[in-house]
Amino acid sequence: MTKLDQPDRLRFSLFTSFCPGGPPGALWNHPQAVGFDYLKLDDWVTLSQKLEQAKFDAIFWADHIGVYDTYQKSWATSVREAVQFPIADPLLLTAALAGSTRELGFTFSANIIQDHPYTFARKLTTLDHLTGGRIGWNIVTAFQRSAWRNMGHDDVGEHKLRYERAEEFVTVLYKLLEGSWEDDAVIRDLERRVYADPKKVHDINHEGKYYRVPGIHQNEPSPQRVPVLFQAGTSEDGRQFATRNAEAIFFWPQNVQGARAVVDNMTARLNSSGRSPGDMHYFVHTNFVVGSTEAEARRKDEEALEYLSSETNLAFMSGTMGADLAEIELDSPVGDFDTNAVQGVAKALAEAAPDKSWTFREVVVALTRNRIVGGPESIADQLTEWRDAGVTGVNVGSITGAWDINDFADYVAPVLQERGLMQKEYAAGTLREKMFAGTASASGPRLNERHPAASFRQHR
Amino acid sequence: MTKLDQPDRLRFSLFTSFCPGGPPGALWNHPQAVGFDYLKLDDWVTLSQKLEQAKFDAIFWADHIGVYDTYQKSWATSVREAVQFPIADPLLLTAALAGSTRELGFTFSANIIQDHPYTFARKLTTLDHLTGGRIGWNIVTAFQRSAWRNMGHDDVGEHKLRYERAEEFVTVLYKLLEGSWEDDAVIRDLERRVYADPKKVHDINHEGKYYRVPGIHQNEPSPQRVPVLFQAGTSEDGRQFATRNAEAIFFWPQNVQGARAVVDNMTARLNSSGRSPGDMHYFVHTNFVVGSTEAEARRKDEEALEYLSSETNLAFMSGTMGADLAEIELDSPVGDFDTNAVQGVAKALAEAAPDKSWTFREVVVALTRNRIVGGPESIADQLTEWRDAGVTGVNVGSITGAWDINDFADYVAPVLQERGLMQKEYAAGTLREKMFAGTASASGPRLNERHPAASFRQHR
Repeated sequence: MTKLDQPDRLRFSLFTSFCPGGPPGALWNHPQAVGFDYLKLDDWVTLSQKLEQAKFDAIFWADHIGVYDTYQKSWATSVREAVQFPIADPLLLTAALAGSTRELGFTFSANIIQDHPYTFARKLTTLDHLTGGRIGWNIVTAFQRSAWRNMGHDDVGEHKLRYERAEEFVTVLYKLLEGSWEDDAVIRDLERRVYADPKKVHDINHEGKYYRVPGIHQNEPSPQRVPVLFQAGTSEDGRQFATRNAEAIFFWPQNVQGARAVVDNMTARLNSSGRSPGDMHYFVHTNFVVGSTEAEARRKDEEALEYLSSETNLAFMSGTMGADLAEIELDSPVGDFDTNAVQGVAKALAEAAPDKSWTFREVVVALTRNRIVGGPESIADQLTEWRDAGVTGVNVGSITGAWDINDFADYVAPVLQERGLMQKEYAAGTLREKMFAGTASASGPRLNERHPAASFRQHR
Repeated sequence: MTKLDQPDRLRFSLFTSFCPGGPPGALWNHPQAVGFDYLKLDDWVTLSQKLEQAKFDAIFWADHIGVYDTYQKSWATSVREAVQFPIADPLLLTAALAGSTRELGFTFSANIIQDHPYTFARKLTTLDHLTGGRIGWNIVTAFQRSAWRNMGHDDVGEHKLRYERAEEFVTVLYKLLEGSWEDDAVIRDLERRVYADPKKVHDINHEGKYYRVPGIHQNEPSPQRVPVLFQAGTSEDGRQFATRNAEAIFFWPQNVQGARAVVDNMTARLNSSGRSPGDMHYFVHTNFVVGSTEAEARRKDEEALEYLSSETNLAFMSGTMGADLAEIELDSPVGDFDTNAVQGVAKALAEAAPDKSWTFREVVVALTRNRIVGGPESIADQLTEWRDAGVTGVNVGSITGAWDINDFADYVAPVLQERGLMQKEYAAGTLREKMFAGTASASGPRLNERHPAASFRQHR
């Protein structure tokens, strides 16, 4: 193992979206955010170069193709306050940034209803070629009614069926990306004028419940063939899907114990599925408010409060939880309710309150503002605890805009690197090779043999 | 009118594809092409910067999402000889090149079955933002059976129905891109925390035969809103579609008279449709073999013959003409056939032969190699004739690879500029503003009021 291979380091991705303010809950009206225009390519170039300089593993764009319209049964708040909206296509932004960095990974959410797997496979291969094998895909099933309806469906798909569809979607991708072109299909023989050997290119003949794709993949193999596969969330359907398909999950544990429970549960699932525990990375998603000192971080955190809007958080949480929070008496203390009588979301919110005198609105804001506030040393201490609980990556969010990453890069990253929590140099190769460098699951640029995609490889 | 505004100049786009060798018929095995790797972003950066330096208006990527599999009822020749295949996604390449040029336009084919109009609208707006309003879209209905089948359809759509679908597809786009967000919807008011005014954002409520899109567009307006709209080919359905929707057509006239006939026909159609003749540009597609002198050009042309494959041309023409040319006795003289008895394609080929002693194979090769060979002065003479026939643009193809553009840029462009046939400087603004600068149809960055898209604009 070389000095670069630190399997027990944490991997870092910046959590953002291709929208005003970046991540949901971030403050596009905060002075730290105002200097950054999400529509300006140059600003993204500067940001991604900063991340590469700080040795971040990747930039991650959360994405969706709808609008949060559950709160007050309208998209008005989402449009007025820019609640992860308007939101542009992160695959195109990935391409636009390919040339201005050399090592940084690009990870994006893309749901399984926005594209047909046949054309989506082409997009993935194209991006993997253009970036030299630096892409990751967060597989999303699309939970928004507005997304499904605008794509011509009557309503959002039922949870179980969405995962069933996702399973077929990725199977088609595996067949196209791993099964259609053999390793030595491309010859580029100038003398004989043979570009590729047709005997080594295969129709995939896929006939399923959702998709029919008889033909061959349109593209010659890219460095990773299949991008690094991420999955977000820890529902039972999600965990089953991740056990089979993912190489990394994003999750939001309440605390270190919660993180350990997820890692242990997934480890057991992986063991009994024929994959290895080391085949999976665990990226905790947390917002950070950092400073060069503890005091500066606390000042920043207090200042950020001034720019906050509870309406933004209500629109976002109503959308993601699928319940109109406007139907609750938001400004009453949660203790005034008989929680046994309050259904679903309201009950969960009431239980999350540290004190029964809190109002529902205060609980929502607190939940959305879930964050770590601190200087370099205390951040490093907390990340050490996560790491020791089995966490292997951190998805770094910010409530003051993704562009606030400068303070993380300048103050926190050097301390993390000193303490072996963050890489000092990039390992060689593709995003997959970098993420698994030095671990027992390292398999080169492509998915390892235990992954179901490997079963579609042709060896003739 | 300023010095820059030369309405009677020709507009120039480079004709290529995101595949080995670039355009179909181009020779990926030719020494001029070998230096260029279509999978290397850096090579495309160099090429696009060269085009910008030479004052080309745009780079154009022809595209398709299938494989030519009509010839010998197999895709084997297309895979073996790289017949516009493998082919990667030009929208992603457009994004990847956005940052390395400032003036060059990016025009790409994209068909109406590869994406749903709701998500395609988002891609267009994203690209228009990232490029600062420099994109053009060649609207294609997808003529390949393999493309339709891999997207889950039983077979290729019937010609008339494809255009019917295309008409609804662009209508959905117009509603999203022009109708959903009013001009002053975006406020970005930091004090009041108002990003956009929900009263000025509108559900499009589209219910049609092919698409249902109830909601709002996911993106705030881009510089052009709708990219410059191109249409290719001159079928009756195509002409009707272009009359209504296109701002430019690509066409392949046999000669100057043929070009004039198309321009006259389209002019009459535009006049009777409520649009103006000046609302349309006419891009002749021609291959060029150029040199610094006539002799050098002829030498290049002869040399190129050595790298030619008639199989490539047969696979390409069988695919585009929808008839398996392998069913014809390819190596017999066309005169041996009673052309009255030969159906469709064979009959057309026989009639295109300059002499009855030519074989079918020779005719196919000659047709695919349709080209202008010459030095700067003779090229300029020929382009002057086209210009005087009403042609307003040239789609510059090459049989020796798109990368052979260097000779065109270095030898031919300066002479064309001297003779007023090519711009010496870029006009200001978006691709649309540049293309219509100084003409009566100049309408700023957006489609003019005579275009059907304008009817969806909200004025409240």
